[in-house]
Amino acid sequence: MIKKKILIQLDPDTHASVFDAVVAIDAGVDHLLQYRGVKPDQVRDLVHGAMFTRGPEDLHSTAVFVGGSDVAAGEALLKAVTECFFGPMRVSALLDANGANTTAAAAVLAAGDHVPLNGSTTLVLAATGPVGQRAVRLLAREGARVRVASRRRDRAEAVCEAVATLVDGADLESLETNSPETTAPALAGADIVIAAGAAGVELLPADVRRGYRSLRVAIDLNAVPPAGIAGVEVTDKAVERDGTVCYGAIGIGGRKMKIHKAAIRKLFERNDQVLDAEEVYAIGREQRELV
Amino acid sequence: MIKKKILIQLDPDTHASVFDAVVAIDAGVDHLLQYRGVKPDQVRDLVHGAMFTRGPEDLHSTAVFVGGSDVAAGEALLKAVTECFFGPMRVSALLDANGANTTAAAAVLAAGDHVPLNGSTTLVLAATGPVGQRAVRLLAREGARVRVASRRRDRAEAVCEAVATLVDGADLESLETNSPETTAPALAGADIVIAAGAAGVELLPADVRRGYRSLRVAIDLNAVPPAGIAGVEVTDKAVERDGTVCYGAIGIGGRKMKIHKAAIRKLFERNDQVLDAEEVYAIGREQRELV
Amino acid sequence: MIKKKILIQLDPDTHASVFDAVVAIDAGVDHLLQYRGVKPDQVRDLVHGAMFTRGPEDLHSTAVFVGGSDVAAGEALLKAVTECFFGPMRVSALLDANGANTTAAAAVLAAGDHVPLNGSTTLVLAATGPVGQRAVRLLAREGARVRVASRRRDRAEAVCEAVATLVDGADLESLETNSPETTAPALAGADIVIAAGAAGVELLPADVRRGYRSLRVAIDLNAVPPAGIAGVEVTDKAVERDGTVCYGAIGIGGRKMKIHKAAIRKLFERNDQVLDAEEVYAIGREQRELV
Repeated sequence: MIKKKILIQLDPDTHASVFDAVVAIDAGVDHLLQYRGVKPDQVRDLVHGAMFTRGPEDLHSTAVFVGGSDVAAGEALLKAVTECFFGPMRVSALLDANGANTTAAAAVLAAGDHVPLNGSTTLVLAATGPVGQRAVRLLAREGARVRVASRRRDRAEAVCEAVATLVDGADLESLETNSPETTAPALAGADIVIAAGAAGVELLPADVRRGYRSLRVAIDLNAVPPAGIAGVEVTDKAVERDGTVCYGAIGIGGRKMKIHKAAIRKLFERNDQVLDAEEVYAIGREQRELV
Repeated sequence: MIKKKILIQLDPDTHASVFDAVVAIDAGVDHLLQYRGVKPDQVRDLVHGAMFTRGPEDLHSTAVFVGGSDVAAGEALLKAVTECFFGPMRVSALLDANGANTTAAAAVLAAGDHVPLNGSTTLVLAATGPVGQRAVRLLAREGARVRVASRRRDRAEAVCEAVATLVDGADLESLETNSPETTAPALAGADIVIAAGAAGVELLPADVRRGYRSLRVAIDLNAVPPAGIAGVEVTDKAVERDGTVCYGAIGIGGRKMKIHKAAIRKLFERNDQVLDAEEVYAIGREQRELV
Repeated sequence: MIKKKILIQLDPDTHASVFDAVVAIDAGVDHLLQYRGVKPDQVRDLVHGAMFTRGPEDLHSTAVFVGGSDVAAGEALLKAVTECFFGPMRVSALLDANGANTTAAAAVLAAGDHVPLNGSTTLVLAATGPVGQRAVRLLAREGARVRVASRRRDRAEAVCEAVATLVDGADLESLETNSPETTAPALAGADIVIAAGAAGVELLPADVRRGYRSLRVAIDLNAVPPAGIAGVEVTDKAVERDGTVCYGAIGIGGRKMKIHKAAIRKLFERNDQVLDAEEVYAIGREQRELV
């Protein structure tokens, strides 16, 4: 008998995310088990319950999703999940806390639709947040030169160091950008800019952006006005403005959702997958190739 | 592909109501997401998760149910839910905390089966509780003269004032009833009496009721002995006693359940409905017309 | 219309058991309602919600499962559940906190596959824990002479007294076993030994066991090394070692799971069942007869 697809939603927040739940159901999950307020030391009993209930041939029909609003908390939960596994006794797991993995993947893929990433120069603004860090990682793996910008140079440098240990031969440069005067040179010669800042913070003023005609793609992941990149509308989806192809958060959102659903479906293909930034990006790349 | 019907159960209690959950499933919900201990300031993230996951053409397949035992808490949650909406971005929502809307609707509809409500004189005992207040509102809209009775006159008066602002031309009178001596004149000339008091409190002694032959319908919503209206059995369903048609809480219950299920089904017809007392009553009236 | 099978999972732990949830789904439950942190005084509202939502002819489609890691807490919840019922107003309920009922049933049934239990001599080590106590009860009902062993004689004696009040004519003996010297005589002449101790405690050294050639069955319910019965592997399933048929925790596990699923399915056959140790054992015996 075909086993029902069971997804165990582990969420560190007070309430388990409705967003994550609806996407899981729309991706074809039969039974969603929601757990909220989950702490790393509580993960073992929960994951053992997933590992020890179905035979090895059915383990791919049970999977774990780690979500919620706090990416660092989600990373700690994913680590606790993978530490439960041994030998073939494991279930597949996906991390998408705060949508960080699917958002970063969708943004980098959107940029790659217009500019070959390999050899490109890309500026990531607010690169020290969870989405920014993931975008830097994915871009570096694709062979882009990445300018890692933050209001604080030391934080930007820490991200460079972390990504350098993950990606062989990563071409990274840390920058401090906290004013039009410091942002302008950061943009000089860039092909792509991705703004991954907090809601309501303008990272790139319009006049600075217009000063650089070399810029081919501008992606703003901020969904709440004012825009992170002035002049980019939240609904922009490959809209050309002053010679630059622009994307806003909603314009990226459709692709992000498709990647999220594909990643959930992928969980149920095998029982040995751990889907974090790179794996989620690979799923998005497969989707592009199918089109 | 047809989207699964997802109902988000928001409940302020320590545990989400099993009653509300079973009714939702019996009304055809495919996936029920239960949230307990929900506070108004936590509603936004949850409802945004319902609003931003499915496209506009599928938003009617996600809905919100606000339940639990505390009607005031439920009202605060429903308000928080509706405040999340903007433009076409919304999902339908139903409030039935403590069964107040479906119970009041079923009681007023039962009365209307036997007496034309328009122009009738109706006494609502314990009218200041959530069910009582809703019964007063529904009766006033139907054109009944409503005597709003409470142990405390000031509370009865407050209900009259609140309902008067909601219902144009409402014919309301506040009364203090806390003894056979004060209840008797309140009943004089009434066609209908509805007792909406707390469990185990006798609001209308048998000898007072029998003294008024004009009384055509007596509805007692108390399910726990002693009866709120002496002589009415909890299972009475249009049982004639001393010339008065009587209903007890269980006698009303079947209709209440039908209205509750119909209201849940209605949620999934469109994405722009907010179902509170009047809307739930209208659903019950439609059911009557179909018979 | 056929009603969906709804199982209400009542769990006293911080998170409701994933293990119990997956087994319930694999047993064919359509909708699982998970409740965690459940206290006995909160049971009434939850169970009333199960009792008062569906008509008498459909009550067998709603059931209660009491699980979690704490058997005493589970027993208190089951008691609170059954106290809600009156007359025909009830739903079926199953207790399997910490797997105690299904594990004890599977162990005693496995022993009975090799030795007629009636008239046998059985030693239960660590007999005062929840699984041990249940094994003693089931063995006594089958007519075995049961040696009830514990590190503390007074606790063993208390179990004997408790079981004696439940099982007419039970043949029970309390023993203190806390060393090879005290365990050896306890094993003398025994046909069966069941070790129901905590993880990682060796209850029966290998040389003591080998000294008793009369021993026909050894069952070790400890899944974490070192074994409770030295020399028994956790995966042993009717493996002969030194003339004794051996079972380890995983070797018993398959049967335990089958009994667990069959018990869940049984819940939905009628609305008046309370499935505790004896009823779960009877379900396992039916399965054996079907083979």
